[in-house]
Amino acid sequence: MFKKVLIANRGEIALRVIRTCKEMGIKTVAVYSTADAESLHVKFADEAVCIGPPPSNLSYLKISNIIAAAEITNADAIHPGYGFLSENARFSRICREHGIKFIGASPDMIDKMGDKATAKATMKAAGVPCVPGSDGIIDSYETAEVLAEEVGYPVMLKATAGGGGKGMRAVWKKDDLLKAWESAKQEAAASFGNDGMYMEKLIEEPRHIEIQIVGDSFGKACHLSERDCSVQRRHQKLTEETPSPFMTDELRHKMGEAAIKAAEFIAYEGAGTVEFLVDKHRNFYFMEMNTRIQVEHPITEQVIDYDLIREQILVAAGVPISGKNYLPELHSIECRINAEDPYNDFRPSPGKITTLHMPGGHGVRLDTHVYSGYTIPPNYDSMIAKLITTAQTREEAINKMKRALDEFIIEGIKTTIPFHRQLMDEPDYVAGNYTTKFMESFKMKDPA
Amino acid sequence: MFKKVLIANRGEIALRVIRTCKEMGIKTVAVYSTADAESLHVKFADEAVCIGPPPSNLSYLKISNIIAAAEITNADAIHPGYGFLSENARFSRICREHGIKFIGASPDMIDKMGDKATAKATMKAAGVPCVPGSDGIIDSYETAEVLAEEVGYPVMLKATAGGGGKGMRAVWKKDDLLKAWESAKQEAAASFGNDGMYMEKLIEEPRHIEIQIVGDSFGKACHLSERDCSVQRRHQKLTEETPSPFMTDELRHKMGEAAIKAAEFIAYEGAGTVEFLVDKHRNFYFMEMNTRIQVEHPITEQVIDYDLIREQILVAAGVPISGKNYLPELHSIECRINAEDPYNDFRPSPGKITTLHMPGGHGVRLDTHVYSGYTIPPNYDSMIAKLITTAQTREEAINKMKRALDEFIIEGIKTTIPFHRQLMDEPDYVAGNYTTKFMESFKMKDPA
Repeated sequence: MFKKVLIANRGEIALRVIRTCKEMGIKTVAVYSTADAESLHVKFADEAVCIGPPPSNLSYLKISNIIAAAEITNADAIHPGYGFLSENARFSRICREHGIKFIGASPDMIDKMGDKATAKATMKAAGVPCVPGSDGIIDSYETAEVLAEEVGYPVMLKATAGGGGKGMRAVWKKDDLLKAWESAKQEAAASFGNDGMYMEKLIEEPRHIEIQIVGDSFGKACHLSERDCSVQRRHQKLTEETPSPFMTDELRHKMGEAAIKAAEFIAYEGAGTVEFLVDKHRNFYFMEMNTRIQVEHPITEQVIDYDLIREQILVAAGVPISGKNYLPELHSIECRINAEDPYNDFRPSPGKITTLHMPGGHGVRLDTHVYSGYTIPPNYDSMIAKLITTAQTREEAINKMKRALDEFIIEGIKTTIPFHRQLMDEPDYVAGNYTTKFMESFKMKDPA
Repeated sequence: MFKKVLIANRGEIALRVIRTCKEMGIKTVAVYSTADAESLHVKFADEAVCIGPPPSNLSYLKISNIIAAAEITNADAIHPGYGFLSENARFSRICREHGIKFIGASPDMIDKMGDKATAKATMKAAGVPCVPGSDGIIDSYETAEVLAEEVGYPVMLKATAGGGGKGMRAVWKKDDLLKAWESAKQEAAASFGNDGMYMEKLIEEPRHIEIQIVGDSFGKACHLSERDCSVQRRHQKLTEETPSPFMTDELRHKMGEAAIKAAEFIAYEGAGTVEFLVDKHRNFYFMEMNTRIQVEHPITEQVIDYDLIREQILVAAGVPISGKNYLPELHSIECRINAEDPYNDFRPSPGKITTLHMPGGHGVRLDTHVYSGYTIPPNYDSMIAKLITTAQTREEAINKMKRALDEFIIEGIKTTIPFHRQLMDEPDYVAGNYTTKFMESFKMKDPA
């Protein structure tokens, strides 16, 4: 087993990994930017190394500084968390070259799954259902026009290096294709330095349902059921739940088998997520694979009594998995609490937390790196806490979330707590009747 | 279902009941003494009524004030929590006479189980194994002398109205019996106004293992497995766990069946606990029955995914139980965090909490009514929080408890956090090798 793990991340996920390492008797090294010196992940690690100032390309993305921190502290493994370098093939390769175990996917795996067009071609070869569309990057506008006719409108244009909604365009008819093609390419070039585009059939009334998988170094994979992440705003997930209210036993079995097929085809090692779009007829299509831990992993942990970070570490240390698939025995919901003002278009609201009271009690889990008196720096993602409730039924989990949100007091900054509180009373949400379009028609009510 | 529940208690258990009521859509009324005006149970209830000043006989024990509060606020039920009036037959009877549902045992049931000698006689009649000893109250010293010879030394003298170790004496040989008899009677008279004494064989190397039961108004009862509460200091529980490290499947089955027999014999309604002493040969003996929720109920909730307060409310409202017995699927440990100084003979340490940081994350539950800036009044029980960790194995639950205790920061007062932190490293505790005598040889190490 590893003796010392460096966590190449910040915030709640750095703390999350430190907690499991401590429980496993593994020493921890935190790295931090000068903006994060007061963060809990720094306080709770056994050692902490400053790796530079913000922005992230001078610290959390600066591979040389992170490798130097690992070498100075004699860390024998690095956990990358999510975001930052977690899906960076070069970082995974450099770790390997330095004899440091990267607790995540191999460079080849990241290369295969990181490029969306390549990922889709691989999944097609594995026999996993994919959204009809182009085989990889489209070479010219003329090809795009022919393809769109074949696939049938509406279609989506997507940047192959994309993410967060950048370089994406929905096209509903031929007349609009050229303009969308040009503007998407332009945006992709500016955002990612790569204007490669691919095309997919646009799925109407889609749900975003993902399957958690774990693969080991012996080529075996299992699935840990689904998470429904359809409640999104501009492609950012706001709240997630498991099981999906749209799920059936039959669909779970099919999607789980498809995800295992995907993982075993590429001999995937570690925890990963296969994201699918599911249409209203319960057809499902491969969207992408995330070769890292997800923000929303706790809801899976809650319903199957499983520590996913522990599993990542065990698999990275060469321990075989049991191979058993896990089915949800409870219902769990996560609300992402962001330092944003839901009454002002979710504008970021960094600053000092003057009062903090955290909810607790039966069925409530809180993952956070903030505390009373902590100043949220303006440099990073606005998520400050993940509030997770778990109960025997979906209705009870929602009721538990309402009371936990009511107890959660954060003063000094604006947060998305009022948004989640309203959501939990929204008839369509309560009925489980939502797609990825849900937030397009959502309006905050005036505060009571 | 009830429309409004008054919680006749304070502190964490009042908050615990309020939380479940909120989740069930039931309005809540808090009552509070003038010393508790700033407590969270007052802030989080829908309504709050001041019922007098400390000490408790002027407020939390003052039945007329509590009934008046219930009538003023139109509460249709009262939850008594634990302690205070929770096992007071007169209060249960007065609630009934006022048309207010008492969420707890009936007056008859409390009468039957509240007097220890009567309880033992009842359990003997039900066929539940009891510690050999007197049949009820001993009429004279001469009878005591004869009985002690029959039962065999060592024996215990116990006050029939006793609790908290008052009016109890261990007697190892005939020569010491008279002195013990006289002093125990004197202490019992002074403490309880009742010097009735009974005798039991003293169980050597005993474990305190209790079975949680739930009975409904249709005469059906089920058990929810055991809690090991052997780590006690002067008969006060410090930490509890389930399953018991001493338990076997066979013993659990036998003790569970005995507890159900006990409950069904008296047609017990509600949540209750049958406490047993278990000797080193795994013989078990009925000790007492608590006709209320226990402090340590959360560890049972954690390992079987069950809300015991919800179950109490449902049963009180006339809902039948499923009748299924629940077996622990996980391991859970509770540490009672008290405002006491473990380096100074656990002396109470009330006062203002100047800094508070609560642990969180995977497998951690915290039930507490305190917050940063809260002043702990000197008038009540010193327990300020219950920290509960849950994992797949005992070893993982202990490791999780260690890291959660390490994260738990309370400044301004002394707490038992350092005691629990040391306990979790104590070889005999880690090995599960402890009896109710464990604390007699326990010494705090000097702080590092």
